[in-house]
This record gives sequence, C-alpha cells and structure tokens, in this order.
Amino acid sequence: MRFARLGPIGAEIPVLLDGDRTLDLREATADIDGAFLAGDGIARAAAAFAAGELPELAGAEALRVGAPVARPSAVYCIGMNYAAHAAESGSEPPKTLVMFMKSPNTVVGPYDDVEIPRGSTKTDWEVELGIVIGRRASYLDSPAEARAHIAGFVLANDLSERTWQLEASGGQWSKGKSAPGFCPTGPWLATPDELDADDTGLRSFVNGEPRQDSRTADLIFPIDVIVHELSQVLALEPGDLVLTGTPQGVALSGRFPYLRAGDVVELEIDGLGRQRQTYVAAGAAGTE
Amino acid sequence: MRFARLGPIGAEIPVLLDGDRTLDLREATADIDGAFLAGDGIARAAAAFAAGELPELAGAEALRVGAPVARPSAVYCIGMNYAAHAAESGSEPPKTLVMFMKSPNTVVGPYDDVEIPRGSTKTDWEVELGIVIGRRASYLDSPAEARAHIAGFVLANDLSERTWQLEASGGQWSKGKSAPGFCPTGPWLATPDELDADDTGLRSFVNGEPRQDSRTADLIFPIDVIVHELSQVLALEPGDLVLTGTPQGVALSGRFPYLRAGDVVELEIDGLGRQRQTYVAAGAAGTE
Repeated sequence: MRFARLGPIGAEIPVLLDGDRTLDLREATADIDGAFLAGDGIARAAAAFAAGELPELAGAEALRVGAPVARPSAVYCIGMNYAAHAAESGSEPPKTLVMFMKSPNTVVGPYDDVEIPRGSTKTDWEVELGIVIGRRASYLDSPAEARAHIAGFVLANDLSERTWQLEASGGQWSKGKSAPGFCPTGPWLATPDELDADDTGLRSFVNGEPRQDSRTADLIFPIDVIVHELSQVLALEPGDLVLTGTPQGVALSGRFPYLRAGDVVELEIDGLGRQRQTYVAAGAAGTE
Repeated sequence: MRFARLGPIGAEIPVLLDGDRTLDLREATADIDGAFLAGDGIARAAAAFAAGELPELAGAEALRVGAPVARPSAVYCIGMNYAAHAAESGSEPPKTLVMFMKSPNTVVGPYDDVEIPRGSTKTDWEVELGIVIGRRASYLDSPAEARAHIAGFVLANDLSERTWQLEASGGQWSKGKSAPGFCPTGPWLATPDELDADDTGLRSFVNGEPRQDSRTADLIFPIDVIVHELSQVLALEPGDLVLTGTPQGVALSGRFPYLRAGDVVELEIDGLGRQRQTYVAAGAAGTE
C-alpha cells in the first residue's frame, strides 16, 4: 500500500493511493504519524480499503503533496554508506555505522520550493532511501528482527550546506543539515511489500542532467543492519525517519556546481516515486 | 517564575512553583510545551497567578518530577564550549560554534533512574545550562535579538557514551548521546528574570564527591551568541532545548572513573535547582 498526505502545510489530509485513485483516510485517522503507525493504522486502513469503506477524495490532483509522515520525533541519518560516495568525499568506507541527525522541522513536501539559506554557497543534494519506523525498536536481538519494526519506505533528499557541515562545526555535520526545508520527503510512504528496498534504483538530476545513479544493493550497511545497530544505542520511535545514506554524484565531489536560485532538482527511487524542487533565495519560500 | 511538570511519565501536571507552594496550571494549559510557550503561556500564567486564580495542587510533594518542558521538537547541543573541558578532551577551544544533536526522546525527569546502556563501558555525566526557546528564531539580525526568543533556562545532564560518541561513528557524536534517559532535565524551568544565566555556578558530584565546578561566565560562546548563530543555520522552535556545553571535570578527562550501576550523580546550577540520579543496569528502569 501507498500512503500520502495532501493539502496545505499543517492541514494535510491522510490518503491511501490505489492506482490512480486517491482514497480519503480521515474516517480512519486524523493523520499519518507515529500514533497511526504504532496503533496498527496500516492494518486498519487495509481492512477499511478491503471493505470498500474509503471514499475517493474529490479534487485530490489539485492539492499540494506533503511529506507522507507528519513530523517525526527524530530524523537519523547514516553517513558514508555507499563506498563510492565516501571516496568522492575524501573518506575511507566506514568500518562502523556513522550516524548523525537532522532537525525534524526540515521535513517538507517533495515538490515544495527549497530555500538556499542566507550566506550559503555550498547547498548540495543527496537522494536517499528513508526507513519509516512503525514500532518502537530498542535492543533488537538481531538484524532479522528489524523488519517487524519498519512501517515502510520513502524517498528523501538529505540536503546539506557543505561549509557549515564540514568546516564550521568542528566536524559535527548536523549544523549543515538542518536548514528549513532541508529534508523534502515523499511523495508517498510505501509498505515493504511494494518494492525490494534492498535492491532498488535511486537517481538524482539537476536541471535535467543526471547526477546520482545507483542501487540500494550497494549500501555498505543494509537496512536491517542499520535498524538493529541503531536500536543498540538509542530507541527508535514510531514515525521516526532513518535516512540510509547517499550514493556518489553530489556537488561535494567537485564534479558538479552547487545549487543556486533557479535550479531544479529531481530525485527518484524505483517504487517510491519522484521529487521535483525549485531552489529559491532565502525568504522567497516563506519559511522564515 | 518557575514552572514544572509533576506526575507519572506521559501524564505530568503543569504547575507554577511559588516559594514552597505548588500551584496547579491545568486551568490555564494542558501542558508546558512548545504550544504553551508560543501562545504567550507564561504571560497568561503570570496573569492568572496575579489574580489569585491558581489553586494549590494537593499532594504535590509525593509526585514524580518530570522534565519541565514536554518533549522538544529538537535538542541541540553545543560542544567544547568551556576552554578547560576542550583541553581535557584533547581539543583546542573551537573557533566556530560546534553543534550536534541528541534524540528528543532522551529527555526525562531530574530524579528518574538512568540506565547504563547495554554494552556501555564509558557512560559519562555533563552538567549543562539549557536554553528553552519560547519563540521561533530564524535569521536573527544580532545576538541582541536572542533574549526575545528565550522562554527560560533549565538544568540538564548531557549524558554521553564515550566509545559510541568518539570511536564508533566516524567522529559523529550523536550516536553516543541518544540512549534512552540520556537527558535528565529540570527540576524546573526558570524565566530569565530568575537568575543571571550568563554568570551562574554549575557543579556535579558522583557519589557525593565533587566533579565539575564552574560558571557560565566561562562559556566561549555565550547564550545570546549561541541562539543567534543557530538561527542562521536552522529554525529554532518554541519548546526546543539548547544545551550550552559542559565544563571540565568529566570522566573522559581520565581523572575519574566512568559511571557504573549503583552510582549516584548529582548536578546543580544556582537558580535552576538540583538533580539526583541513580544509575542502574539496562532493563532495570523500564525504558526498553
């Protein structure tokens, strides 16, 4: 199944996507969030769908697409998780799982304009497979237990300001990962049966030119290992977002220019849809 | 004014502390959180207090003390912000503001038992002054604007697992900062008029023996500079917690042993009260 949230910021309507049909989930839940996922919301939605109880949402195609999960309690990011990206960043592939965090208020819709922050000269894209946690995960016994705690997967853009990330914070990356709008997410949340998340293609484009093009099969630490390892050092909560890392082909490599106002970034993951963002000067998207 | 939250985890009652009296705020707000702070809750509580409209809370002294602000949307931490602590950690004092993040689900009450995580051999204390954001802060024009965005201050313990922080995550500290219970906060939120937060004493003790003893006047980046600088790279939200850094005297220095089950940590900041935590083996505090 595929879930989405449609409508203005802060007033998104939860929906279930069934082929070309958009089904209104408001009778089943107020939102798609941690409480929905923790409360067996996906199973309840599936039952309502099977019983034909979900009405079509009129005018859905005219609505803004929001992030498919309401603001997570945390956004965890895995760093340097594709060997070729580690190399283009000047690093060896990591021997242990590298984790850093983004502010959860960076999560926005997949087609929302993105502001290039004031003073930024190195705003960079990163296409990533995102894991959405469905059930609290703490001290899992093995990677094999991870799937029972995953609600599904999303496409995300882990935007980065490279100067702030790498040069202005003593090496702590979060400072360059948390500007407003720096985590476009969606268009939809897909349940695990919808795709082979362990081997799916992911790509990015800037102004129509290809940038990243890889497969999640190249992840150094795969999905189940990430969830298991994080659960040893923190408690993952329903609705939390875990970004699994980005492949080679970002501006940091030196092969491409950083983003400027007017640029258009497109990202896609097979089975998780496509994003398209126009980049604008700070202030222009109203996030201040 | 001093605000607190009393009662079982997830069912804390918002209160105003007036000397020895504990006044029930439930007629004015459901909780002390970002919405309360953003909605002029402090001014409304002050007006209700001045009008004598707040009843005493019966049996308050028997209630658990929770964190004084309900779960923040983010916990930002400033690193290496006291020169002597940077030195004991083997670092030069930073020339730019070092920021990393903790998971918000680490925030617990000041007297709650703290679990030493499974497999941890280097759990370490850090007494810190915490800033609570009262009004959204984005692109502030100067440090002088910071105060208008600060609701008040809290005492916090920025607990750290040093192996996970420094050796197991490619240098990204969040992995060792986010274990369940790793941010005891409170006992109360004090409005800025209650103390001189720019020059107040902060101390920690393990099993009654002194460890840290410093003053916030020694902060390399002071409160207003922190809020101003963060507002240039991210948007601070009402209810967010910003921990300002810890002074020298932690176990990482090599001068003291790391924490073990049975240890008792006490922390205090003049004007912000005192914490006391007993450390227990993972599983014993019921956070799993």
